[in-house]
Amino acid sequence: MKKLINDPANVLADSLVGVAAAHPELNVDLVNRIVYRGTPTREGKVAVISGGGSGHEPLHGGFVGLGMLDAAIAGEVFTSPTPDQIQEATKVADSGAGVLHIVKNYTGDVMNFDMAAELADAEAGVTVETVVTNDDVAVEDSTYTAGRRGVGITVFVEKIAGAAAEEGRDLAGVADLARRVNASGRSMGMALTSCTVPAAGQPTFDLPDDMMEMGVGIHGEPGRHRLPLAPASEIAQQLAEPILADLDFTGGPTIVMLNGMGGSPLIELYLMYGEVKKILDAAGVDVARTLVGNYITSLDMAGCSLTLLKADDELLRLWDAPVNTPGLRWGV
Amino acid sequence: MKKLINDPANVLADSLVGVAAAHPELNVDLVNRIVYRGTPTREGKVAVISGGGSGHEPLHGGFVGLGMLDAAIAGEVFTSPTPDQIQEATKVADSGAGVLHIVKNYTGDVMNFDMAAELADAEAGVTVETVVTNDDVAVEDSTYTAGRRGVGITVFVEKIAGAAAEEGRDLAGVADLARRVNASGRSMGMALTSCTVPAAGQPTFDLPDDMMEMGVGIHGEPGRHRLPLAPASEIAQQLAEPILADLDFTGGPTIVMLNGMGGSPLIELYLMYGEVKKILDAAGVDVARTLVGNYITSLDMAGCSLTLLKADDELLRLWDAPVNTPGLRWGV
Repeated sequence: MKKLINDPANVLADSLVGVAAAHPELNVDLVNRIVYRGTPTREGKVAVISGGGSGHEPLHGGFVGLGMLDAAIAGEVFTSPTPDQIQEATKVADSGAGVLHIVKNYTGDVMNFDMAAELADAEAGVTVETVVTNDDVAVEDSTYTAGRRGVGITVFVEKIAGAAAEEGRDLAGVADLARRVNASGRSMGMALTSCTVPAAGQPTFDLPDDMMEMGVGIHGEPGRHRLPLAPASEIAQQLAEPILADLDFTGGPTIVMLNGMGGSPLIELYLMYGEVKKILDAAGVDVARTLVGNYITSLDMAGCSLTLLKADDELLRLWDAPVNTPGLRWGV
Repeated sequence: MKKLINDPANVLADSLVGVAAAHPELNVDLVNRIVYRGTPTREGKVAVISGGGSGHEPLHGGFVGLGMLDAAIAGEVFTSPTPDQIQEATKVADSGAGVLHIVKNYTGDVMNFDMAAELADAEAGVTVETVVTNDDVAVEDSTYTAGRRGVGITVFVEKIAGAAAEEGRDLAGVADLARRVNASGRSMGMALTSCTVPAAGQPTFDLPDDMMEMGVGIHGEPGRHRLPLAPASEIAQQLAEPILADLDFTGGPTIVMLNGMGGSPLIELYLMYGEVKKILDAAGVDVARTLVGNYITSLDMAGCSLTLLKADDELLRLWDAPVNTPGLRWGV
């Protein structure tokens, strides 16, 4: 295992020290492993928080800031944060207007966020609404989920719900919008290589030099099928087709993310996006906004994922609204 | 070789198609392989352009936009662009106020940019000033250079010279400032793995599982020495010490970049930055601004580099000035 780390057991803790050092504008609770904005949630604003296992950076801590998250809770690598951690973030972030939990559909995350929401309500009277993202078209049930996994759409939900909260929408309104974004999004991912969890010290799965894994999750969970390595144009087809077959993206604007899994360089991600765009053009999809880069990763895995969000004028406006986070920044 | 590509001979061309598709705000000349801003250089503004071999993305094409570059010329992977390409970009970007060429110190780049500058002057009367970056403390002469290599400081020169040009400074003034930034910056890099040039199909160098390469360049050129794999805290020492020994960074503000080589995930880069920050604090370096992420990469190489810029109030102000590019964006 070749990594820029100290003790494999302390990767998350050590990395958060770096986040705190690099981002004085954020407030990093190193004990509870929570990243907050530098200033408390303003009175009357719904707090939007998320979290999950680490190893998917910049998700979630890199999306804390104006126009996006109020707090992000970090579990150990690929491990849900505890209910105590989530409860702490929920209570601290709440300004009285309630808290939206954005939770990727993984059994541990869903269970722990639910428990935290109950505790925060019982102990501190915090009202919590939860949206569970489940946009991955690769599999119905998976190693770690009942139902579809929550992947790339989570970035879109955090951005758009964050913008709506910033505008002063109430908790029910922000939650409805977040659910609408999730319902209007689809993703599909693939891996050229496995990732290596530091504490495990070896690749999560074996993938021969001439094979790739289609439909992989963000923890190296198996996907749809293992196929011989193919050109980018074919990979793009394999990513786009199941998405386009699952939801009709014609007749309105679409927001597209071509996301890197962490180990694939930008020159390849742009190349992949070029191939995807040809397919979307041919399918009559009107691409209104594009993100290309590493946004929801799987440690050092080489590969990529594609996420499409069927948008409308309201969603585009909220997408374009100012955001000021380490991972996404515009309009400020 | 596992990459998200089609024909290994067409990686650059295919990738530029994706850049054009993803960034309608840019103007991509697919024939000459030049990325321009969407609107021509405004009358009276010095044009700031750069370029070099591809494989270092987001450098240089990802830094085209308001407050940074006017154009970026892309050579094939790890290969200088031709004088013809550079001359074309120089002539198109010039609005009459002259053009600054920012050139990393590699023999091919320096020669081709020089030739292009002469041709642009002779054929179209364009006045060109050149700044050659040479901030790498690892080696004096290298495989591809006489003198030190130009690496991370190039990002800082592009940002700060771009901001000065935007403010209306004249060509001599922008060039002086660019040279001052280069002279005030130092970098050192390291690799955990080699990179693989697509056309070669195999890793540029062999690096055993228990070894790392200190002082590596951005093309997989050998560095100072090959060492047994070490914890991040020791790697941080090995990166910071030669930099601090080469220039006194105390007594003023410093801008720091902890840069990923392309294959190392963000969780590791932040961890590395945490270790670097401890060393800088102990050395009395006042870190005023920080960048952590992939800014000048070496394809899929795992590893990182550290760049320090000794700044002052003027350089900080120009660093903070608005920038709107795919790779760096703030204040807009």
